[in-house]
Amino acid sequence: MAYPPLILASTAITMDMEAGIFFTLYGIDVLKKSKYAKLKVAPLANPAMPMPVPNIVGAIPGMTAMATTMMKSMIKKINWPTIPELIEICHEGGVKLWPCEPSMAMMGIKREDLVPEAEESIGAAAYLDYASAASITLSF
Amino acid sequence: MAYPPLILASTAITMDMEAGIFFTLYGIDVLKKSKYAKLKVAPLANPAMPMPVPNIVGAIPGMTAMATTMMKSMIKKINWPTIPELIEICHEGGVKLWPCEPSMAMMGIKREDLVPEAEESIGAAAYLDYASAASITLSF
Amino acid sequence: MAYPPLILASTAITMDMEAGIFFTLYGIDVLKKSKYAKLKVAPLANPAMPMPVPNIVGAIPGMTAMATTMMKSMIKKINWPTIPELIEICHEGGVKLWPCEPSMAMMGIKREDLVPEAEESIGAAAYLDYASAASITLSF
Repeated sequence: MAYPPLILASTAITMDMEAGIFFTLYGIDVLKKSKYAKLKVAPLANPAMPMPVPNIVGAIPGMTAMATTMMKSMIKKINWPTIPELIEICHEGGVKLWPCEPSMAMMGIKREDLVPEAEESIGAAAYLDYASAASITLSF
Repeated sequence: MAYPPLILASTAITMDMEAGIFFTLYGIDVLKKSKYAKLKVAPLANPAMPMPVPNIVGAIPGMTAMATTMMKSMIKKINWPTIPELIEICHEGGVKLWPCEPSMAMMGIKREDLVPEAEESIGAAAYLDYASAASITLSF
Repeated sequence: MAYPPLILASTAITMDMEAGIFFTLYGIDVLKKSKYAKLKVAPLANPAMPMPVPNIVGAIPGMTAMATTMMKSMIKKINWPTIPELIEICHEGGVKLWPCEPSMAMMGIKREDLVPEAEESIGAAAYLDYASAASITLSF
């Protein structure tokens, strides 16, 4: 379930759209350093992985510069990149990867538990503020 | 799975947005009187709870008056309120809590089975009419 | 999980909206010929069916002609039509039923495995292009 928002966001930036993903509840696992080894296995082949619940915020038409090195990497890997590769591609392309602050508090997750590509955590109000200006909002 | 739409809707009203939630299929359980005792246990700690499928309709920029007593209650309970508390907060703040009419018919649920905070049931056409004017639409 | 997008899309066209559904990952099963016998059993009664993950793209206000024969059929079947019936109703009413190209490649699904009502497969960029003009975007 981590693929759809990451694929859509990484595609959106190649189309000069802005994109952000709000990782809530178990979705935060996608940003956890300790999960990276497991995430290198595609989720479909790993039924034991807890289901992440990331929310893609949307794609605001914008002026994000297109990273050509990133695009080349996408084209080369036409057979689905791994989740860590998608996190890297999204981060390099300017996709905001926001962990949900109350979810982190509830589950006792600290900033240092997360990969460096993660933004500072935000709450529901900041999410709604960003999403209300987006032209596409989806939840997975 | 009941938390994300209720948290987002209760936050939206504190930001002077309007919000409505369309409860479909098992999502209607969130509005059932008989489920309230169980829902006081947070879903994460209660794996036996059937997965609700509520759809948040969105947040229409509007003029909803901000209930200050509700906000105080939110601030006091910075550690996640229970689902019944969120239903109460949403209802007091003007969030529309719509059960899905065909889902109720299919599952034999009657109006009197639902908490008083629930609105009259609506169908897909009324949902689409409301959602098409919303700036954020999500499905959980 | 196939019902919500198909019910919403089939309702949208009766309201003179345009609608499209992007079937990703297991959601493509809804369009597979070999699944049709099983899909005639409602998903709620068939726990063995893999969970489909279709994404409704949205409802673009438009000029789609309203098929009156289709509407009569909907009214007659006020007790939920089957998934194959909904696929037929959606197709006749002009709902675009797009299989996701990378999902098909990943799972080794060919065009001839799909029902004739399915459109040619598209990718994430075409989805985002369509969705960014929609007034409602949902993911199931």
